[in-house]
Amino acid sequence: MTAHESGCELCRTDGGLVVARIAQLRVVRPDDANFPATYRVVWNGHVAEWTDLPPEQRSLCMRAVAKVETVLREALVPTKINLASLGNVVPHLHWHVIARFDWDSHYPQPVWGTAQRDVEPPAKQRLALGLEALDARIAAAIATMGGD
Amino acid sequence: MTAHESGCELCRTDGGLVVARIAQLRVVRPDDANFPATYRVVWNGHVAEWTDLPPEQRSLCMRAVAKVETVLREALVPTKINLASLGNVVPHLHWHVIARFDWDSHYPQPVWGTAQRDVEPPAKQRLALGLEALDARIAAAIATMGGD
Repeated sequence: MTAHESGCELCRTDGGLVVARIAQLRVVRPDDANFPATYRVVWNGHVAEWTDLPPEQRSLCMRAVAKVETVLREALVPTKINLASLGNVVPHLHWHVIARFDWDSHYPQPVWGTAQRDVEPPAKQRLALGLEALDARIAAAIATMGGD
Repeated sequence: MTAHESGCELCRTDGGLVVARIAQLRVVRPDDANFPATYRVVWNGHVAEWTDLPPEQRSLCMRAVAKVETVLREALVPTKINLASLGNVVPHLHWHVIARFDWDSHYPQPVWGTAQRDVEPPAKQRLALGLEALDARIAAAIATMGGD
């Protein structure tokens, strides 16, 4: 681990509960009370930008993003999926894949915007599928990438 | 145009200054004073989610995103690139490609977050390349996709 990587939160830690891992990337679920169906596709190697990867690895990364998005859509029927690769605070490539609902705390604002309402019962109790079952579906979907 | 599409801002309008257009998508530049080096890759057909597209079209879309990102990195050397497909307000597939700088109004917050500082001289005057020249480079990069 280089000095740079040792200072990087996504080199030092997984960045959340690991629900799936292949050689190139992992899918983690941070514990977000407002947006419980939030997953991150984290590239295992330390690169800052998506285009730091060669094209075939960019595609692999996005195939993982698509698999997570597809599971979230099928299992939860969200109002919208939000995808983002920002990395201003932690410049290590990670894609946010977030199921949004018209009743969630910030909708239609981005999750980084201003809260619009209190949500009761809490978001985690409103999902059509529990998080552990959702994690298992994502793990199964990512496992199909193993042969690439 | 269906009734649904006629109510969609990105079906009715280009969504910004069109800097490049191919059959499947266009690249537009909204006029954003805080983040002048902001482009959007807008899918021409009306789909809400990225995974509404079949895999080969998803890839084409992301190749356009990568081309815009690459031009921004080479021309402007930004602190970070931010990529996002949200669509909570306008659920018609469009990818934000935004050059971020450590001096910009919101850095390191997302552009949808809270402003961190006033910027003077304004952001547009600080870019290493003028916007018209940047537009031209993006147009040239997207034109190389024409044969796909």
